[in-house]
Amino acid sequence: MSESWLDEIKWTDDGLVPAIAQEEVSGKVMMFAWMNRDSLAETIATGRAVYWSRSRQKLWRKGEASGHEQRVKAVRLDCDADVILLEIEQCGGIACHTGRKSCFYRTFKDGEWVETEPVIKDPAEIYAGSKGK
Amino acid sequence: MSESWLDEIKWTDDGLVPAIAQEEVSGKVMMFAWMNRDSLAETIATGRAVYWSRSRQKLWRKGEASGHEQRVKAVRLDCDADVILLEIEQCGGIACHTGRKSCFYRTFKDGEWVETEPVIKDPAEIYAGSKGK
Repeated sequence: MSESWLDEIKWTDDGLVPAIAQEEVSGKVMMFAWMNRDSLAETIATGRAVYWSRSRQKLWRKGEASGHEQRVKAVRLDCDADVILLEIEQCGGIACHTGRKSCFYRTFKDGEWVETEPVIKDPAEIYAGSKGK
Repeated sequence: MSESWLDEIKWTDDGLVPAIAQEEVSGKVMMFAWMNRDSLAETIATGRAVYWSRSRQKLWRKGEASGHEQRVKAVRLDCDADVILLEIEQCGGIACHTGRKSCFYRTFKDGEWVETEPVIKDPAEIYAGSKGK
């Protein structure tokens, strides 16, 4: 497969592009992460979301530790060709390493950030016997 | 109002934070942009989305040229405190400077990016007599 579709993306100087993951069925924005060429190419090839972990400097196959893989239903690109939107099916219904459905679980109310989503599963249980998210 | 809620955000070295705007009523992801402290503070204070234009290096009051303002219904923060999610009402139903509803109007299909959203209004008409988006 030609990689011209990868060349159309405006990568950062570090070779990355921001990626938003949205749950297809609910429309819920689940998480935000970064991708490099390899992670996006693997995402397209396998249909599973693969990000680039900036902290660990390696490919991050979402769910490899937690089992909470993301099956990719659609991959979209924005007008400036510098942001990716994934529409996904979230295995286990949990995207966040805190055990919540979405990473965006805090809401601004009266001058502070308030937790507005419950922990569905204890992270200690999610990551029993493994490392990373 | 105390600004401790601003201090809780992990700003980039450039003093920015990524921001995702989602249409509250439809769940549609409309656009992605960046914010600095001033833009987020003004967003909270006024209830209108204000971003930081990296290309113009100035506050970008969304809709100031197009009239397509965004009324902010909720402001959320992710688990790492380094990404903002805005739930908005999109004035005019158009977020993208190309005249489409969402900036994410291209979808990956069979090895290429395909336009999958219509232009609702000609940009020449949107920006008649003004500059910028």
